[in-house]
Amino acid sequence: MRSLRVIGIGTGNPEHLTLQAVRALAEVDVVFALDKGAETADLLALRRSICAAHIAKPHRFVALEDPARDRRPADYGGTVEAWHQARADRLEEAIRDQLGAGEVGAILVWGDPSLYDSTLRVLERIRAAGRLDLAWTVIPGITSVQALTAAHAILLNRIGADVLVTTGRNLAAQGLTADSTVVMLDGDPSFDQFDPDLTIYWGAYLGSPDEILISGRLGTVAPEIRRRRTEARARHGWIMDTYLLRRP
Amino acid sequence: MRSLRVIGIGTGNPEHLTLQAVRALAEVDVVFALDKGAETADLLALRRSICAAHIAKPHRFVALEDPARDRRPADYGGTVEAWHQARADRLEEAIRDQLGAGEVGAILVWGDPSLYDSTLRVLERIRAAGRLDLAWTVIPGITSVQALTAAHAILLNRIGADVLVTTGRNLAAQGLTADSTVVMLDGDPSFDQFDPDLTIYWGAYLGSPDEILISGRLGTVAPEIRRRRTEARARHGWIMDTYLLRRP
Ligand SMILES: C[S@@+](CC[C@H](N)C(=O)[O-])C[C@H]1O[C@@H](n2cnc3c(N)ncnc32)[C@H](O)[C@@H]1O
Ligand SMILES: C[S@@+](CC[C@H](N)C(=O)[O-])C[C@H]1O[C@@H](n2cnc3c(N)ncnc32)[C@H](O)[C@@H]1O
Repeated sequence: MRSLRVIGIGTGNPEHLTLQAVRALAEVDVVFALDKGAETADLLALRRSICAAHIAKPHRFVALEDPARDRRPADYGGTVEAWHQARADRLEEAIRDQLGAGEVGAILVWGDPSLYDSTLRVLERIRAAGRLDLAWTVIPGITSVQALTAAHAILLNRIGADVLVTTGRNLAAQGLTADSTVVMLDGDPSFDQFDPDLTIYWGAYLGSPDEILISGRLGTVAPEIRRRRTEARARHGWIMDTYLLRRP
Repeated sequence: MRSLRVIGIGTGNPEHLTLQAVRALAEVDVVFALDKGAETADLLALRRSICAAHIAKPHRFVALEDPARDRRPADYGGTVEAWHQARADRLEEAIRDQLGAGEVGAILVWGDPSLYDSTLRVLERIRAAGRLDLAWTVIPGITSVQALTAAHAILLNRIGADVLVTTGRNLAAQGLTADSTVVMLDGDPSFDQFDPDLTIYWGAYLGSPDEILISGRLGTVAPEIRRRRTEARARHGWIMDTYLLRRP
């Protein structure tokens, strides 16, 4: 039986780590990193510095090259499935080769492992394949949603009201349906379709020293958000941003 | 200028504290606790032990008696407003009397301050009254939603799909509208109205040694959840539970 810890590390601030995560890290022998895309170098660097700071014993850091992925596929579901399977194959191989029996492995997940992250699905695939005897536990982390609300010092919900967490893709398809809507994974925010009297709370690189925060009446601040977003993405080579839209 | 830190402490596990929260606590002179209801004693005890463990210097712990509140009011919005104002008045008085200039105050919030919590609204009311010069920062904490998903080792969302976070009250009024729905603040879960083929992931006292987890096909496990819930609430004198409903 090989054992893994799936550890949420928060969204850029090394102090987002919980005491539970710190304790879980202390006993780790091997860290598997499954990062992807242009942001890889920066995000890997944060993971490495977290490991250096918190893993007490000598440990190995295994960075897995991510399978290529079509970011704008016609068949979204099928493409994601195939991509998860390719990730599962790579991770299974790495675990088999690098994690000895009796050793403890860890996967450090950006934010919290429950939110728009493939790690747990990939592990389920490895389990389903039945070739590796693998068990894991999950340690929660601060999500980008909470990094956003904390930075703006706001509530997610209005009194007693609902909150919808959605993606840029779904928002474009469905429009606004909830009183408060959090939008993640929006590569190309187009705010123009919405009531300009909405309030927006926007944040990029949340938790990191590069954090950018803008809030206000949507119609008023949308041009500034777009400008800052384009400029920052060009400078960093990547961007991660999240926003909350609230009905007037 | 008086300064406050609003610190999310997670949902029952003292190790949910982040390193950021630990650092923020270390410098605190006065802790204000605004707990309520039957759970008060247990939750206050956890807060006190967190303070004892992490506040380095001598500090004062100010427990505020909570204004009475009608739990099933006819006018929900109006009742909550009046209750927030009563809390604001008490907290303002306590801050004025107990927090000296140059001292640092803290309010420890269950879970994360952004989610169904009145602390930030109460502080806004104090600011709006204009009698006290007050500034605050927010430090995020692990929510009960994440404690639920981590304990069940599940994702909140289906691949690329939405998540609705709602209350028992809203769920009863609106029915299920999203692919994945997280229900909080449900004093009397009535699952019978829903498709028995839904999957439910239920958790009570999440993060604490008393944690209870049940999951499965709704129609199959609902009677067990109701039984365990009634039994546990009778034994503890209070219960906090959260669940995720997923469409088949
Ligand atoms: C693949 S999802 C991972 C979410 C992560 N598991 C979490 O708990 O926040 C990536 C999306 O999360 C959001 N995100 C993650 N980190 C962020 C950050 N530091 N600042 C702003 N948004 C962030 C962005 O919306 C981004 O498109
Ligand atoms: C007033 S809200 C506060 C939520 C909190 N701010 C958070 O971030 O989780 C209280 C509700 O949170 C959920 N909750 C809080 N702590 C919990 C726990 N330890 N186990 C299960 N549910 C919990 C329950 O649904 C409860 O009715």
